[in-house]
Amino acid sequence: MKEKLVQNAAGRWVPVEINGEKAIPYQGVGAYRPQGVRHAPRLFSNADYPADGNKEVASLKEALHKAGLKDGMTISTHHHFREGDLVANQVFDAAAELGVKNLCWFPSASFPCHAYLLKYLDDGTISHIEGSMNGPLGRYCSEGKMKKTAVLRSHGGRYQAIQDGEVKIDIAVIGAGCADAFGNANGVTGPSASGTLGFALGDAQYADRVIVVTDNMVPFPCVPWQIQGNYVDFTVKVDRVGIPEKIVSGTTEVTKSPDRLLLAELTARFCEVTGIIRDGFSFQAGAGGTSLSVGNYFADIMRKKGINARFARGGSNKYLVQMLEEGLVEYILDGQTFDLDGVRSIRDNPRHVMTSPFTSYNYHSKGNIAGMVDVVVLGATEIDLNFNTNVVTHSDGYLLHGIGGWQNCLFAKTVILPVPLFRDRIPVIRDEVTTLCGPGELIDVVVTERGIAINPLRADLIEKAKGSGLPIKTLLQLKEEAEQICGKPQPPVFTDKIVAAIKWVDGTVIDVVREVAVSH
Amino acid sequence: MKEKLVQNAAGRWVPVEINGEKAIPYQGVGAYRPQGVRHAPRLFSNADYPADGNKEVASLKEALHKAGLKDGMTISTHHHFREGDLVANQVFDAAAELGVKNLCWFPSASFPCHAYLLKYLDDGTISHIEGSMNGPLGRYCSEGKMKKTAVLRSHGGRYQAIQDGEVKIDIAVIGAGCADAFGNANGVTGPSASGTLGFALGDAQYADRVIVVTDNMVPFPCVPWQIQGNYVDFTVKVDRVGIPEKIVSGTTEVTKSPDRLLLAELTARFCEVTGIIRDGFSFQAGAGGTSLSVGNYFADIMRKKGINARFARGGSNKYLVQMLEEGLVEYILDGQTFDLDGVRSIRDNPRHVMTSPFTSYNYHSKGNIAGMVDVVVLGATEIDLNFNTNVVTHSDGYLLHGIGGWQNCLFAKTVILPVPLFRDRIPVIRDEVTTLCGPGELIDVVVTERGIAINPLRADLIEKAKGSGLPIKTLLQLKEEAEQICGKPQPPVFTDKIVAAIKWVDGTVIDVVREVAVSH
Repeated sequence: MKEKLVQNAAGRWVPVEINGEKAIPYQGVGAYRPQGVRHAPRLFSNADYPADGNKEVASLKEALHKAGLKDGMTISTHHHFREGDLVANQVFDAAAELGVKNLCWFPSASFPCHAYLLKYLDDGTISHIEGSMNGPLGRYCSEGKMKKTAVLRSHGGRYQAIQDGEVKIDIAVIGAGCADAFGNANGVTGPSASGTLGFALGDAQYADRVIVVTDNMVPFPCVPWQIQGNYVDFTVKVDRVGIPEKIVSGTTEVTKSPDRLLLAELTARFCEVTGIIRDGFSFQAGAGGTSLSVGNYFADIMRKKGINARFARGGSNKYLVQMLEEGLVEYILDGQTFDLDGVRSIRDNPRHVMTSPFTSYNYHSKGNIAGMVDVVVLGATEIDLNFNTNVVTHSDGYLLHGIGGWQNCLFAKTVILPVPLFRDRIPVIRDEVTTLCGPGELIDVVVTERGIAINPLRADLIEKAKGSGLPIKTLLQLKEEAEQICGKPQPPVFTDKIVAAIKWVDGTVIDVVREVAVSH
Repeated sequence: MKEKLVQNAAGRWVPVEINGEKAIPYQGVGAYRPQGVRHAPRLFSNADYPADGNKEVASLKEALHKAGLKDGMTISTHHHFREGDLVANQVFDAAAELGVKNLCWFPSASFPCHAYLLKYLDDGTISHIEGSMNGPLGRYCSEGKMKKTAVLRSHGGRYQAIQDGEVKIDIAVIGAGCADAFGNANGVTGPSASGTLGFALGDAQYADRVIVVTDNMVPFPCVPWQIQGNYVDFTVKVDRVGIPEKIVSGTTEVTKSPDRLLLAELTARFCEVTGIIRDGFSFQAGAGGTSLSVGNYFADIMRKKGINARFARGGSNKYLVQMLEEGLVEYILDGQTFDLDGVRSIRDNPRHVMTSPFTSYNYHSKGNIAGMVDVVVLGATEIDLNFNTNVVTHSDGYLLHGIGGWQNCLFAKTVILPVPLFRDRIPVIRDEVTTLCGPGELIDVVVTERGIAINPLRADLIEKAKGSGLPIKTLLQLKEEAEQICGKPQPPVFTDKIVAAIKWVDGTVIDVVREVAVSH
């Protein structure tokens, strides 16, 4: 059967149906208005839960069985334990033992440690993944091996999809560093402390059944109760929910690469000369080496000017914590936590504010935090001449990254992408991006080691950068410089088969990923 | 038209329709199972809210107008400012100026300061009240002057009614001690600090439009954001939201009355001899003079035994704060805040946990906190020989009190009612309570100055109290002793007109209040 495709507002051909469900093509930034109402879970009664609040059962398998696990259900897990996660693999081991098939796995993100689950994709325990894929699972998907179409969403889009009822979670399994038998849970204490648990909020609120799994069961109340036991059906104590040294890195480190340091320095200088760094401003930078370095340069500029930031959005890490403790940053609004200093600080310092994809990123509510951030520094795999950007596929066509909060952060007041002009002699700036993830109108500045391109829509920034001595160029100039060095890149070769859909923050389909044509 | 009445499981005659909506008769404790799903508010889009997050409008009247205020709507407010509240009165002043009629006022509680609104009940701006009534408004209702039937719910029942869609709030107006322009709000700082804002949680989550009103607007982020701006449509800065000295008392004081001290001491001794006070136990006591004294006696016993409580449920006040600071209590789980020591402590001490009617009291979720409390000490206006209890009407038939969290707290492991044997020569223990609020099977112990009655259902407590030297009696003995002193009380005289319905925690109708027959 040939899929029916339509051209969306970004000019991409997308299906009007995904896995048998209606899909809405992308209509442009802010153009689509959701119809209808929030997903309404059924009502429960206290009378059906233990009077003393003790919901503990003996094993994850028992909890899944009691939760009514059956063929075709949607099971969610979360990536708070990152590469150290042991929960998702245990869930599907239990499902396989129970003989259940055709599950949709709905993780907030997957990591290389979840390559373990390839066997369950092969044997039909898992039919497909709806969630950000990192590495081996993305490669498996790109090779056309998944039984249904994968769906990738941003962190905010995942919350939106749950809230709007696009994805109905039958059973949510929430791994937590700390919990009580009632189901209150947090990630700030215990051997598997991971920082916040915000990615599981929507699951707790809207899933039919909720299971909390921990290796650190404490007497009620588990405080803070970032996940509220009032949403939880069963609690389980297991030996280990994660491998501590892989959950958070002991330390994060700034880059030592001269090229990346240059990108970071140019980004910070751009923010300084254009007045983005001012007293009371706000910023978000990721946990990559370049982003960490940008934060350090920001700190130098703030010290020099004697100003501070009202808030920074984290990913808390030791550099951001230092800025908080030095008073350069008044609050850290944490989405996740990247190292042990971040975990310690979020536990002990009340100037951390735990956020969730609801508060930070949900597009179908009455505003969110992302839009209030003055400047955000993000990555990209490819950028076209209109600033349209790809973050999920490489230029060889393979789906190797999730979207994370990337799309959501594009609503910040200024969006800057520091990127190398080429990687492994493959240019980053291209005539067309392999996969469209972010509309160019939301991307303001591209910083490369050979020059800075400002989106023509931002005449204000172009004006402010004049006479700054910064190397301002056009994207076309930068692309030509790269091609002079690396040559014109070859486009990837795909079959017609759609293997994944890329959702925009409002649940519409902005692009698809096709099967990579592997030469035999 | 004659109302159709049916006899509910408690033997009370209740209507099957209230204000034109279907009503379900009480079916017994834990007997009713809700059908259907949570109320599903319509979906919103960030695209319809200010990109910079600034939702501030010039006045409350403008906010109400923009929120689409019109005839017949349901408007909610909250009692965090208690007798110092200026918000509710301002809301209906604005509504009257806008010429709007027949509003349902849905407060979390009303106070004598809201007698100001009687003129709007008279002129038809407000058609009726659904919410706990204290004093003048209850009297007005009892005299049959309200145009529709009032509905009284517990704090947990109010959340349940919002969640289940029994009450659809068109516009919620949330007064806050502190807020930002995005709508994040708390009650812990500013001139009108009131402690927690938990009573407004359900309103924020489920109302169609939400307005936050403050006299203390701070730059984003307002932290903690107990009310999340993502639910808020408009923010308003007004001169004053409350009268500070009436919001929280400067200090709360234990009773000096010898009779009440005796009740408190007997209650504490009962808890000691029956082993309820043990290491790691939990308790809840209100803010009345007797309850405060119970807490003090508990503290003495804990010091003597060298033990502590895992948590206390507040109403924080200076006595509870002292116990927290002394280490006698590990955590205070705050529902509200009663004095300035409580406000200071909840702001500065991380061992306070802000709760809400959702976490503490909602009966239609997967359990709540109330059931996990070892012992709760509550008040009553009347108790019958089967421990059935009244808290809303006096023995003259007048509706003068709200339910508050009283019904919800009955699910604690042990419920103790310390009451005087008579008030103003009117006996408290009676053949029949004027209004049934709490089923006797949930009430374990009645403590009076002339003896302690234990519910026969609690054979364990009866056994433990043996040989304790405590004056254990039956309710019948206590009733007879009172009647020997005061004589047999006269029942109140009512007309047939139902003026208010009393809901049970699951939304069913447990009893009604009838118009008092006033002799002319």
